[in-house]
Amino acid sequence: MAPLPEGFSYGQWCLVYNALSFGIAAMGAATIFFWLQLPNVGKGYRTALIITGLVTAIATYHYVRIFNSWVDAFSVVQKEAGNDYGVTLTGNPFNDAYRYVDWLLTVPLLLIELILVMKLPKDETVSKSVQLGLASAIMVSLGYPGEIQDDLATRWFWWCCSMVFFLFVVSSLLVGLNDATSKQPASAVDLVVQARYLTMFSWLTYPFVYIVKNVGMAGTAATTYEQVGYSVADVVAKAVFGVLIWAIAAEKSHLEETGQLRGK
Amino acid sequence: MAPLPEGFSYGQWCLVYNALSFGIAAMGAATIFFWLQLPNVGKGYRTALIITGLVTAIATYHYVRIFNSWVDAFSVVQKEAGNDYGVTLTGNPFNDAYRYVDWLLTVPLLLIELILVMKLPKDETVSKSVQLGLASAIMVSLGYPGEIQDDLATRWFWWCCSMVFFLFVVSSLLVGLNDATSKQPASAVDLVVQARYLTMFSWLTYPFVYIVKNVGMAGTAATTYEQVGYSVADVVAKAVFGVLIWAIAAEKSHLEETGQLRGK
Repeated sequence: MAPLPEGFSYGQWCLVYNALSFGIAAMGAATIFFWLQLPNVGKGYRTALIITGLVTAIATYHYVRIFNSWVDAFSVVQKEAGNDYGVTLTGNPFNDAYRYVDWLLTVPLLLIELILVMKLPKDETVSKSVQLGLASAIMVSLGYPGEIQDDLATRWFWWCCSMVFFLFVVSSLLVGLNDATSKQPASAVDLVVQARYLTMFSWLTYPFVYIVKNVGMAGTAATTYEQVGYSVADVVAKAVFGVLIWAIAAEKSHLEETGQLRGK
Repeated sequence: MAPLPEGFSYGQWCLVYNALSFGIAAMGAATIFFWLQLPNVGKGYRTALIITGLVTAIATYHYVRIFNSWVDAFSVVQKEAGNDYGVTLTGNPFNDAYRYVDWLLTVPLLLIELILVMKLPKDETVSKSVQLGLASAIMVSLGYPGEIQDDLATRWFWWCCSMVFFLFVVSSLLVGLNDATSKQPASAVDLVVQARYLTMFSWLTYPFVYIVKNVGMAGTAATTYEQVGYSVADVVAKAVFGVLIWAIAAEKSHLEETGQLRGK
């Protein structure tokens, strides 16, 4: 990756610093919530909930790494003559690839958690998991070569390649899972529909954050927007989405327990 | 081991760095997954699942060590005049023996987890575990003296010694376990067959990565290929393989619970 630009203000540096720390706290807390809820849902939903927690656990690990990398990349010292801090680069690289390694693992997993919680027939579960899991892994892999480029044409090229798979996954979620959604029990349909739209909405933020640098924005502002934007999108797509997955699992477990829904 | 070559590009250094961090995240997440699934499988499969998690836990530990050793071996600083980073050796050794210590522990264990999940008669379980466990430990031990040599003839000699035991283990998996596989319940046969082929396939990558340096490739490219190759092979052979072991255990537990398979 190209070195970070020089000239961050203390305010910009702090914004990224605190957004990354927010990521650690939110992802870590979400992980504990999901795993502590395991005994409260039916056996058939536990794998979905275990994976939901894995996604946020993997993200917690990467947010700790990104945070440390951000801190190591800068020297922040009080200015001699003033009421402010000076932010300079130490020369240590800021490793942004952590995000891509994270997505490579977590994006297929969070699609699988949505498929699992719907409790489709076994064949459909396996085929959809493989299909969406692979497509999303390819999507992430194709995005990276563009992310580390400063050349705008190259950035757009990889963005487009990645978007082909992005659109396939999102349309599968919208159209393909439509039938399955209608087979969900009435009280869970709303939650499943919400989860699908939340996925769509939070996912859509990624290609927009990605093109912050494509549309000519550069320097410290672009990096600040990018880091804060990805952090917020990650918390929504993983932790908030996970809460919906848990709500669906809890509702359906309750229905099965009270005989209103036949468990498989 | 011979000191690392000088002259890594920042891209090569990053690739190894991120592959190692990917190893930590993937192995760590897999460990938690296997152990959280323990209450969901029948008592008879829990030892197999505990060992599956041990394999990835031991690997997580070693990947943290290898990652730290890689970071300590290099100084990565932004170049004064340019848009790139300079990578130089600090003189601290990169300890590649971690991989061999890891394999010495994990390879016998992952063969044992496959034998255990098949629930063979007790005598056969013990004899096969001892036989394959010992052969694989010898295989790893014979590989190491070659790995730390730069002399090609010596590398080939130890590679051949190690391959004798490698071929014994792989052929045992293919031929010897064939009978046992046919005794598995119908719905688990496919999974067991997949696990056996995945073992074969992922194992075969190791001797090929090993000979990267034998075939005359040297310098930074050889080290980069070797580190990334071993990392990917490890994740497949331990974490992905473990998921198959869990799937077999879950399927057979379900069959036993519903009376379609008699537990022993």
